[in-house]
Amino acid sequence: MSRIRICIIGSTGHVNYVIDGITGDSGVDVVGVAPGSEGEIVVQVYERIRSMGYLPSVFSDYREMLDALKPDVAVVACFFGDHAKVAYEAIKRGIHVFVEKPIATTFEDLAMLKAAYDDANVHLAAMFGIRYDPWFFTAWRAVRDGRIGKVRLMNAQKAYRLGVRGENYRKRELYGGTIPWVGSHAIDWLYWFSGEQFESVYASQSTQYNQDHGDLEVTGLCHFVFTNEVFGSVSVDYLRPKGAPRHDDDRIRVVGTEGVIEVRDQKVLMITNDTNGEEELPLLPKGQIFVDFLKQVRGEGVCLVSADDSFIVREACVRA
Amino acid sequence: MSRIRICIIGSTGHVNYVIDGITGDSGVDVVGVAPGSEGEIVVQVYERIRSMGYLPSVFSDYREMLDALKPDVAVVACFFGDHAKVAYEAIKRGIHVFVEKPIATTFEDLAMLKAAYDDANVHLAAMFGIRYDPWFFTAWRAVRDGRIGKVRLMNAQKAYRLGVRGENYRKRELYGGTIPWVGSHAIDWLYWFSGEQFESVYASQSTQYNQDHGDLEVTGLCHFVFTNEVFGSVSVDYLRPKGAPRHDDDRIRVVGTEGVIEVRDQKVLMITNDTNGEEELPLLPKGQIFVDFLKQVRGEGVCLVSADDSFIVREACVRA
Repeated sequence: MSRIRICIIGSTGHVNYVIDGITGDSGVDVVGVAPGSEGEIVVQVYERIRSMGYLPSVFSDYREMLDALKPDVAVVACFFGDHAKVAYEAIKRGIHVFVEKPIATTFEDLAMLKAAYDDANVHLAAMFGIRYDPWFFTAWRAVRDGRIGKVRLMNAQKAYRLGVRGENYRKRELYGGTIPWVGSHAIDWLYWFSGEQFESVYASQSTQYNQDHGDLEVTGLCHFVFTNEVFGSVSVDYLRPKGAPRHDDDRIRVVGTEGVIEVRDQKVLMITNDTNGEEELPLLPKGQIFVDFLKQVRGEGVCLVSADDSFIVREACVRA
Repeated sequence: MSRIRICIIGSTGHVNYVIDGITGDSGVDVVGVAPGSEGEIVVQVYERIRSMGYLPSVFSDYREMLDALKPDVAVVACFFGDHAKVAYEAIKRGIHVFVEKPIATTFEDLAMLKAAYDDANVHLAAMFGIRYDPWFFTAWRAVRDGRIGKVRLMNAQKAYRLGVRGENYRKRELYGGTIPWVGSHAIDWLYWFSGEQFESVYASQSTQYNQDHGDLEVTGLCHFVFTNEVFGSVSVDYLRPKGAPRHDDDRIRVVGTEGVIEVRDQKVLMITNDTNGEEELPLLPKGQIFVDFLKQVRGEGVCLVSADDSFIVREACVRA
């Protein structure tokens, strides 16, 4: 089988998922790099790829790159407001797309992308890489194995340090919003853990006390109702203090009919009707989202994040 | 100063707050005990009070008791749907009221009670005794002292074991609902910690998987918006597993502009911009809500739970 040819468009999101995913994989070739948004600098991505032994061409226009190189896979990770447009251009050309979330920040963009995807015969996955973090994957596995019974109630949390962020975070048309950006992971967890469908969402965001970060919301709260009267909250903030031990404080608590499982401090804690007190679950090994995506492209497996998941979670985020 | 004469009406709620509060206080006398709801048994309360050396009279009708004994303070803790009616009868007679929450389960009852209170010159406090738990009080003190800056976002949680509960939990007209009953504590915390006013609430509850407990909702989720774009979630459930180390799993996480404070596992954990990692705060000594209420009745202090607090939180609960 010939090598999978990859183009990277943009340098803003989690390109490291791709770097990590192709490390040690002799079946891929990174053939091109281009910016996806006006003003985006890709020299660092280019040098990183070069240092891995690839010789990608650099283009200033990603459409020209796609037409000239005809890659198998396009990695899209530019300014958030441009994801949909860039992914659309790739899909239209029959190229598989591994795209940073949010895959769209408006209903129009989402509908356009979904229509193009439905017409094409390509694979698409959003970069919900946190599903592959051992603590989240281990907890999800336990829930899927029925260890806490039926999921009834979930509380998810994303908390980041703010620091000082660039212009692309300060303008809503570039950034898209804190719930779609930071919150989308947690919204994805609710959907992924519950196995239910979204029914409604009620959400609030605030830019107050954002330390001169323009449109950037620093607090947000969402209330989701899923099928079968399953409920889920998502709390999002950029107020994690400087004194915190890690950048992020990602959590989920999943309440089931037979037990409660929590991810906190990168640990998985479970109490069930059968356990005596709280049990810390041993972590499963770390998976790689891009490795799984490549397997799917090769027809050898299924990525944990399906295209349907990507579209459904995206719609929930935009609604929120 | 003469002794404060107390009547106890009902045996359903946290009468232990009163028992604990009067222990060692030679300035009080418990003069009467009566049921507050049809079918309520008060013999155990009577015997408990007797064993403390008091000689209360027992009445079958609490109105007759109030008229005959003319106490200074009525403690109201009967079936939840009857709290407002019984408290109203006491207030009308100019008697101070220490009442189990929910102080009302309908808007009509709440309005009736509020009008009677406004016309009377009495003290009233709802039994939000958890404010006096050292971990909550310590965290609140730290927030009030400005250690986390301005409060912006809060996540509160109440989780109880279900076990097997009596009829008064299974019928909505007696029970009032899980958000007003269990949730009210957490709703009170949001209000108490934030120092903001309620603006709106969105709430969901479900009776699914309540193990034949009739109308009893076993999961609930509330989304509150306060003044100044402060948000707060309340997650409530009766699904705490049998294997859990304690009956309750009460938590709050308060995110401020300068730090984050959490109550969890009866501990207070704080991270601020100035601390290095997470700090566990030493707990302040346990206060007694009824001791404070008696001080207020004596004109010697102010209870942490004001009448205004009681009415405002109650309105929020009924709306939820």
